[in-house]
Amino acid sequence: MSIVTDASSPAAPEIADATPGDGLREGAFGNATGLACRECGHQVALGPHYACPECFGPLEVAYAFPAVTREQIEAGPRNIWRYKALLPVPDDIEQSRNMEPGFTRLLKADNLGRELGIDHLWVKDDSTNPTNSFKDRVVACALSAAVEFHSKVFACPSTGNLANAVAAAGARAGIRTVVFIPSNLEKPKQVNSAVYTDSLVAVNGNYDDVNRLASEIAGEEEGWAFVNVNVRPFYAEGSKTLGYEIAEQLGWRLPDQIVIPVASGSQLTKVHKAFQELISLGLVEDKPYRVFGAQATGCSPVSVAYKAGTDAIRPVKPDTIAKSLAIGNPADGIYVLDICRETGGAVEDITDDEVRAGILLLARHEGIFTETAGGTTIGVLKKLVDTGQLDPTLDTVVINTGMGLKTLDAISDQVGPAATIEPSYAAFTGSGVL
Amino acid sequence: MSIVTDASSPAAPEIADATPGDGLREGAFGNATGLACRECGHQVALGPHYACPECFGPLEVAYAFPAVTREQIEAGPRNIWRYKALLPVPDDIEQSRNMEPGFTRLLKADNLGRELGIDHLWVKDDSTNPTNSFKDRVVACALSAAVEFHSKVFACPSTGNLANAVAAAGARAGIRTVVFIPSNLEKPKQVNSAVYTDSLVAVNGNYDDVNRLASEIAGEEEGWAFVNVNVRPFYAEGSKTLGYEIAEQLGWRLPDQIVIPVASGSQLTKVHKAFQELISLGLVEDKPYRVFGAQATGCSPVSVAYKAGTDAIRPVKPDTIAKSLAIGNPADGIYVLDICRETGGAVEDITDDEVRAGILLLARHEGIFTETAGGTTIGVLKKLVDTGQLDPTLDTVVINTGMGLKTLDAISDQVGPAATIEPSYAAFTGSGVL
Repeated sequence: MSIVTDASSPAAPEIADATPGDGLREGAFGNATGLACRECGHQVALGPHYACPECFGPLEVAYAFPAVTREQIEAGPRNIWRYKALLPVPDDIEQSRNMEPGFTRLLKADNLGRELGIDHLWVKDDSTNPTNSFKDRVVACALSAAVEFHSKVFACPSTGNLANAVAAAGARAGIRTVVFIPSNLEKPKQVNSAVYTDSLVAVNGNYDDVNRLASEIAGEEEGWAFVNVNVRPFYAEGSKTLGYEIAEQLGWRLPDQIVIPVASGSQLTKVHKAFQELISLGLVEDKPYRVFGAQATGCSPVSVAYKAGTDAIRPVKPDTIAKSLAIGNPADGIYVLDICRETGGAVEDITDDEVRAGILLLARHEGIFTETAGGTTIGVLKKLVDTGQLDPTLDTVVINTGMGLKTLDAISDQVGPAATIEPSYAAFTGSGVL
Repeated sequence: MSIVTDASSPAAPEIADATPGDGLREGAFGNATGLACRECGHQVALGPHYACPECFGPLEVAYAFPAVTREQIEAGPRNIWRYKALLPVPDDIEQSRNMEPGFTRLLKADNLGRELGIDHLWVKDDSTNPTNSFKDRVVACALSAAVEFHSKVFACPSTGNLANAVAAAGARAGIRTVVFIPSNLEKPKQVNSAVYTDSLVAVNGNYDDVNRLASEIAGEEEGWAFVNVNVRPFYAEGSKTLGYEIAEQLGWRLPDQIVIPVASGSQLTKVHKAFQELISLGLVEDKPYRVFGAQATGCSPVSVAYKAGTDAIRPVKPDTIAKSLAIGNPADGIYVLDICRETGGAVEDITDDEVRAGILLLARHEGIFTETAGGTTIGVLKKLVDTGQLDPTLDTVVINTGMGLKTLDAISDQVGPAATIEPSYAAFTGSGVL
């Protein structure tokens, strides 16, 4: 935890000396000063690196932030670039061809709050991003890094949302994309990526096989930017914008409680990092807030460790309909445990039936059709209230990371017509619907 | 045409005397003063009416606009309610529970422009609305009317986007919805509505049968607001916001040319009406602009009439993959012809293969995955340039009305993996993708 806070602190002196690597233009990464290891603190110059050369810990972007005011941010564009001073991107990022994601709506969810017994509830709805998931945020930051590194190929291994976001962003930027997927992926998910790129590569194997192949290619080929492999430190910073937006949209204040889905755990740690940065910069008042992580029981290694009171996260073989959360060996799981414990939150998990019920809860009460990951988060929110882990009188935000059309199969057997009738008024009045 | 302009004029004196019907609160419809027949000009009080009692012509909302400034609008929310002074909604509309649609991005489409040979091209991307189509705009206005009329049921006949928008908006507003669809509708489209409502009614018949049943129910049942039947005048006004936003996002100026898909024709006529209102109110400079309509050849009654130089639109039986444009007897077709002819535009149509190509053009060049209606509009844009009907040196806007996940089948046979390989670097380098 202390390393996280140090790395994001405006004043962290030990990283201010790091200089960009060769061939990079001045200001290519804005106020970022280097990459710092989250485990040992070792620093390296900004570059397409992701593992500490000393201890193999994860590298994270470090900054020397200038003074930043609310007014400066509010005068910016209605997308994530309004926070460009806090991201590893150049000052002219708005002139680049990118997807302009973010500044999605923070919806007051009074109906759902009433249903769950929560006094003040908001849904941060990232399903309205350009490719309909929060992945557009992280991919936009990865794209900026890829462009600054003069990468010739923009790539990823993925099973869904990330593939869509990478293929679309590459198309708009005019950079070649190569997207790797398991060959048994459902046809609709293949189409939703192949529509953007002519280099969709199907790999005979599961996601872990695809991921290993991507790491191998990243090591062998020059000039490939794999968003979630070798430019991962830049990519991951994009999730901070979820935290910035929530605070700004609440009127420049932090929520009392926030519920966030956990796959690799990166999003949760980055939202927390964003809140800490806002406090450090004086943009919000310092106050306690509780962070909660949401998993599906079929892939709940972090929740299991949380409940066991241990730091040892045992990898699992995922078996859940929440496929976008199905990472059996979550890289940032340990940091999720730290944050949830230190802030007085929790990590909880729910069954696939509760995931489906969560999807319907949000749709029926707020008119938002979420994917299984969102169903997981809503379902966990309900469970946290029901079990007394979440205080229903405190201001609570829940993040919806994606949209339901991408995971239709999960609930297509659950809902349907109330009646099938002949086309006459008499048939209708006799149908029981009236 | 003259009636359209009169009805939208701030000073139209003959409608200022119309008063709201019984039981309506003061200011329930903002600056709207009554409903005026588009054909004969006859006026009736504001109410759930859609046909002129004198001549059966379509009723349209008439206003007495106050002075409205750019600054007032810019200080409003980032959704369609920033234009509330120009819509039939109350001044406190932002306090109601609604989907808060609109203010979608206007994206500079330099890649696509270069591909098509157009110097300055923008895409108005309505696929990022809450339920991923422009229908959220019209439904939000219909919902406001339904609430003001104390309707107990919010309903529609639909085959897709409208059903989604109505069911979702009703869920969020806490008003009962009943949505009628043809019983042979694809399962995914049923799910995408049923997720929001427990009163999805499947009707054995085609869309015309469903539509007739809806009209019958609207006539028999008290307190039902069918968005596209008895509250249609209010509903249709929502499309004006597309025109307002385009002008504002261009820096308070009108484009030189705009290409709009034509189903009933309502959207095209309302965008034109919006431009005329902005000129009347002094919010933009008066200048010529050309309006183009886009249809799929398999349902192109307006395009056929345009090319034949006649006003007689012969109804057709639709046969095209662009199902959201498949209205064989378009209610506003005659007004589309008027507007396109008077402004120096045109109505054009393309084959289903060209629709598919249009979807890929937008995806591959701008990272936007559109539905078949959007593929139609992009494909028609290309044809208009290729045939010299659209001037490629003028500022051109094209409207994307919806998103591709809803019409996946249309292109699922067109795109897919470039290669299927074993999970090894050697297999990848030998695949031909590199």
